[in-house]
Amino acid sequence: MTEKAFQDYYPDKVSHCYGCGTLNDHGLKIKSYWNGDESVCVYEPKDFHLAFQGYVYGGLMASIIDCHSIGTAVAATIRDAGHSMEDKPEFGFVTGSLHVDFLAPAPTGKKLELRSQITKSTDKKVVISTILSVEGTACARGEVVAVKLPYGLISAMI
Amino acid sequence: MTEKAFQDYYPDKVSHCYGCGTLNDHGLKIKSYWNGDESVCVYEPKDFHLAFQGYVYGGLMASIIDCHSIGTAVAATIRDAGHSMEDKPEFGFVTGSLHVDFLAPAPTGKKLELRSQITKSTDKKVVISTILSVEGTACARGEVVAVKLPYGLISAMI
Repeated sequence: MTEKAFQDYYPDKVSHCYGCGTLNDHGLKIKSYWNGDESVCVYEPKDFHLAFQGYVYGGLMASIIDCHSIGTAVAATIRDAGHSMEDKPEFGFVTGSLHVDFLAPAPTGKKLELRSQITKSTDKKVVISTILSVEGTACARGEVVAVKLPYGLISAMI
Repeated sequence: MTEKAFQDYYPDKVSHCYGCGTLNDHGLKIKSYWNGDESVCVYEPKDFHLAFQGYVYGGLMASIIDCHSIGTAVAATIRDAGHSMEDKPEFGFVTGSLHVDFLAPAPTGKKLELRSQITKSTDKKVVISTILSVEGTACARGEVVAVKLPYGLISAMI
């Protein structure tokens, strides 16, 4: 894994996301890294992130899959273009769709491990598939369609 | 709309959900009601539920769609069986899958309005389709497959 997470390179202006923004002190602040061709994120839910007592809230898993997938799309696009995250490029993706299949209940008090791969990449979108597991047991499978935005659009919007 | 929300009838033992549990003081505590054949939920995001400054976090929308859909499945099943929510039945659904298409950015400082319909119902599952809108503009479309559990299973798990 690299030392700095994908999200640590996002420009301040786009670092307020509840799921992954380094500047959102109420948020989850997830961190994503490359591990070979996979991107990895490890997150330990808070004790109140419950579905039922003893089991993790599915909406939290969906949220983490979403942000980790977008981070993966950003990092892969920069990498594939031959650039470095150090260039701090414009954050250029939004979520077009988010799909999560819940495979097994995720117990609380454990770390959620997400491993993602790019399954499709075009000029317009990147599709990211994720397995979320707890101690080796797959608890959810996610697919995010990340839609590429014209360069500079988000900065112009906010 | 009815006075008490679906979630207000859930037994205490299953009222700790981060999205909709009345006993989770850190949670969103969404409230769902019938409005004819539709179920409706109105939620005002907190100012830190951001994707970018000025726009609501997609993971929050996915979470609310999830919990509102499960509540709708519970309430519809009770209603269709000829029972009343006052019976406080066992909470008998979990999310099998969650799909959200994001249609337009949802501006902050506004209420999210969810309107849902049951599109399929079998002995094993209920499918719920939702439109999430802000001031009449559809911002997301959700589909949740709610999986029916054997009566008493969740109580036995927790």
